[in-house]
Amino acid sequence: MNAPSTTDIANAVKRYLDAVADGTAEEIADCFAEDATQEDPVGSGARRGRAEIEKFYSAIESARRKTELVTLRIAGDGAAFHFVVTTEMDEHAVEIGVIDVMTFDEQARITSMRAYWNSDDVRMLR
Amino acid sequence: MNAPSTTDIANAVKRYLDAVADGTAEEIADCFAEDATQEDPVGSGARRGRAEIEKFYSAIESARRKTELVTLRIAGDGAAFHFVVTTEMDEHAVEIGVIDVMTFDEQARITSMRAYWNSDDVRMLR
Repeated sequence: MNAPSTTDIANAVKRYLDAVADGTAEEIADCFAEDATQEDPVGSGARRGRAEIEKFYSAIESARRKTELVTLRIAGDGAAFHFVVTTEMDEHAVEIGVIDVMTFDEQARITSMRAYWNSDDVRMLR
Repeated sequence: MNAPSTTDIANAVKRYLDAVADGTAEEIADCFAEDATQEDPVGSGARRGRAEIEKFYSAIESARRKTELVTLRIAGDGAAFHFVVTTEMDEHAVEIGVIDVMTFDEQARITSMRAYWNSDDVRMLR
């Protein structure tokens, strides 16, 4: 199998950010390989496997969401990218600026994801 | 030993970027733990240990350099940050926008560094 190209990886990042903005938890989890690991934020402990990952994203499923890619860097089989995610639930809206680091398999599914952010990076919009 | 604080990590990133801008290869390597790993760019193969790391940075020692931190995210014992490095040698100047991912030991020395960039991120200024 070949390594994913930079175009494959850029498309996989876009697919992930689109799913986080508009998709169900299952659609987000489908961006990941079956036995992928996911840690969000880094330091909080890693999840493993699509079921655990889907459960994590089910927490945002009922919120209105928006994602915006700021900077994307691709190297080898990995990517690091700065993006902003906005989540609205009831009358509250929260914006978080995150740097995600991902590796990908030959089909450009996410094999690991680590999200760098802490409470200083969270902004209450209302 | 305690984990480094977010302030310790922010200072360590600043020290590293200052050393890349103004320091000798030895001063840059001093930001790393003795048995640290370093891969720049990701996919090119990792170096291990301060001697190999110092050798890597000796290639830029004679250039005029500048670094600018764009975005820093800290989580757990790690950091991911977008920065721009400009290198001038003879009549040529090159600018590269990079996302670095680092882990740190309890003394906030770099234990691993992975630099995400590829040839698309290199801009010839002259």
